[in-house]
Amino acid sequence: NRPFRIAVLPGDGIGTEVMPEGLRVLKLAAARHGLPLELQAFDWACADHWLRHGRMLPEDWFETLRGFDAIYFGAVGWPAVVPDHVSLWGSLLKFRRDFDQYANLRPVRLLPGVRGPLAGKQPGDIDFLVVRENTEGEYSSVGGRMFEGSERELVLQEAVFTRHGVDRILRHAFRLAQQRPRKRLTAATKSNGIAISMPYWDERVEAIAAEFPDVQWDRQHVDILAARFVLQPERFDVVVASNLFGDILSDLGPACTGTLGMAPSANLNPDRRYPSLFEPVHGSAPDIAGQGIANPIAQIWSAALMLDFLGQAPGADAAAGRAAHDAIVAAIEQVLRTGPRTRDLGGHASTREVGEAIAAAL
Amino acid sequence: NRPFRIAVLPGDGIGTEVMPEGLRVLKLAAARHGLPLELQAFDWACADHWLRHGRMLPEDWFETLRGFDAIYFGAVGWPAVVPDHVSLWGSLLKFRRDFDQYANLRPVRLLPGVRGPLAGKQPGDIDFLVVRENTEGEYSSVGGRMFEGSERELVLQEAVFTRHGVDRILRHAFRLAQQRPRKRLTAATKSNGIAISMPYWDERVEAIAAEFPDVQWDRQHVDILAARFVLQPERFDVVVASNLFGDILSDLGPACTGTLGMAPSANLNPDRRYPSLFEPVHGSAPDIAGQGIANPIAQIWSAALMLDFLGQAPGADAAAGRAAHDAIVAAIEQVLRTGPRTRDLGGHASTREVGEAIAAAL
Ligand SMILES: CC(C)[C@H](C(=O)O)[C@@H](O)C(=O)O
Ligand SMILES: CC(C)[C@H](C(=O)O)[C@@H](O)C(=O)O
Repeated sequence: NRPFRIAVLPGDGIGTEVMPEGLRVLKLAAARHGLPLELQAFDWACADHWLRHGRMLPEDWFETLRGFDAIYFGAVGWPAVVPDHVSLWGSLLKFRRDFDQYANLRPVRLLPGVRGPLAGKQPGDIDFLVVRENTEGEYSSVGGRMFEGSERELVLQEAVFTRHGVDRILRHAFRLAQQRPRKRLTAATKSNGIAISMPYWDERVEAIAAEFPDVQWDRQHVDILAARFVLQPERFDVVVASNLFGDILSDLGPACTGTLGMAPSANLNPDRRYPSLFEPVHGSAPDIAGQGIANPIAQIWSAALMLDFLGQAPGADAAAGRAAHDAIVAAIEQVLRTGPRTRDLGGHASTREVGEAIAAAL
Repeated sequence: NRPFRIAVLPGDGIGTEVMPEGLRVLKLAAARHGLPLELQAFDWACADHWLRHGRMLPEDWFETLRGFDAIYFGAVGWPAVVPDHVSLWGSLLKFRRDFDQYANLRPVRLLPGVRGPLAGKQPGDIDFLVVRENTEGEYSSVGGRMFEGSERELVLQEAVFTRHGVDRILRHAFRLAQQRPRKRLTAATKSNGIAISMPYWDERVEAIAAEFPDVQWDRQHVDILAARFVLQPERFDVVVASNLFGDILSDLGPACTGTLGMAPSANLNPDRRYPSLFEPVHGSAPDIAGQGIANPIAQIWSAALMLDFLGQAPGADAAAGRAAHDAIVAAIEQVLRTGPRTRDLGGHASTREVGEAIAAAL
């Protein structure tokens, strides 16, 4: 069994602080469950690299990284040094697109010991998965300006959807729904307002749904869908959405469970032609960086998603990957119930203390 | 003083049930505050009209309505008879665009006696205004398909922003912020992902902000902004957003206060060249139509917004309009505290009973 090759990119700010805790738990869980890893760290995709080289990544980044199974990513962004759009489009968004990580998976769960903003909810009440298309749609640099600088100025922004891109994310989401006990899927749309792309999305949902007769599905306009995340989050199981809608819904979901600072994400290239990327949903948080107080749970939870995905590779051990995933999530839950907590959760523990506690609970 | 001319279009479903209660309170408040009204009802913009004429509006709708000061609208949509995109683009969305109702105002308030989904909030804690651009941006029928029906199929959807359209909604929002005690404004953006239109929006926000040095403003990406509606709704005062972002945020806001079924909206043509339109945010709700149990508060609250706007017309009595607005909102609050309630609020009262109670509380 060859080891899985993992590229480690801590990035900026609290990325570099939560990464050691992520690695601590990752290595331990992988060893326990017989999943051999080979880790290699890179000091790319950070403001330092930008200062030294005037770019976020070296020229040969693609060739260097493409042979890896996964990228374990911290957080990128240091706006005092590099404008956000430069650092993001120069690293994270480039990985997602060039490595065709088209399926962005973002679990939303109410966790024990976490006080969410919604009244009267118990752990177990909220447990759904946002599946976001991650390469096309509204995130596009296509378009331009006309009559620039004048009163007549106008701006066109293209959203680009392809049959290839839409069908594969829908199939991926339906397959995930099929594997879950409730087997339900909700597709976000806005076909009553956005007149070309969203009716197309609706059409494709209907076509792909026919391939999964055992999944119960519906379509909801994104405005009311967002409202229902707040009003009836129990109703959701798998939610599939375009790039933009998925972005909004996958911040809103964790906000509803009070876990925005703890939410993990998997940016998958399900074909495994390219590495998949695992990262916290949170950013580099320059405001609290350098103090060792960041919550490492999102980074650790992202390691769980990684082991689950790696285990499912052809010839690998899917049960071991799943067991490692479940063990990490259980350890997180145990520490949230009784262990040390960082400041964002009302505690006084350091990033490292929480990481060590989760490793010990494993 | 010539009377204000109001076109009344109840529409479909519960629209026809809440409208009489809206009119009851509207007429009473207008009379009390010396705002003369002339009302004229139209049986357009409903499934019945569609069945009889094969279109939502008669050919001369524009000429007929354009001389009115306001349109008092119920709700449109009866999907069993007319597809939603046909009824919406054939009436409501047509009014918004052809009558250049570019400013969509949607107040978000935590009301007494209403149990919202957020834990530990008190009336007064949440009180902000979503100002939505209502004519351009992402709501566009521009674009198309290529390689139709094949595996190579692709769809382009244009979002169209103009300097004219962006600047005027921003100015309108900044002016509204200026009139509020907190004088704060947040502009929704997504310039870290949507690479052409949103950086433009950011630029214009910065340019227009310079005209309003007394307003404190910031920009927030729509994903985190949506999350903060749930986590820290107290922080918001005026939120200005593009058509799509405004659509999402103005459903999410009222969801956070538990008032989604009670939320009003004003679709303003601030220049008063064309009529402005006032309507509930809720739809025609075919599932509960015909039973007389719909909550009429959104329709009644929309009348308050209308009187406020009418009062501000040149030569009219702005103080009277404002007083009528405040009186209606106070009457709604009083009935929510102690009066009859419809089923959605856990009561057993009919639409009419609630309308009568609010009229009596006036
Ligand atoms: C019905 C729909 C087209 C409409 C919109 O998206 O504008 C509605 O959601 C609204 O917010 O008024
Ligand atoms: C930082 C930003 C470009 C990114 C996105 O919009 O995809 C982030 O919000 C996310 O959700 O991963």
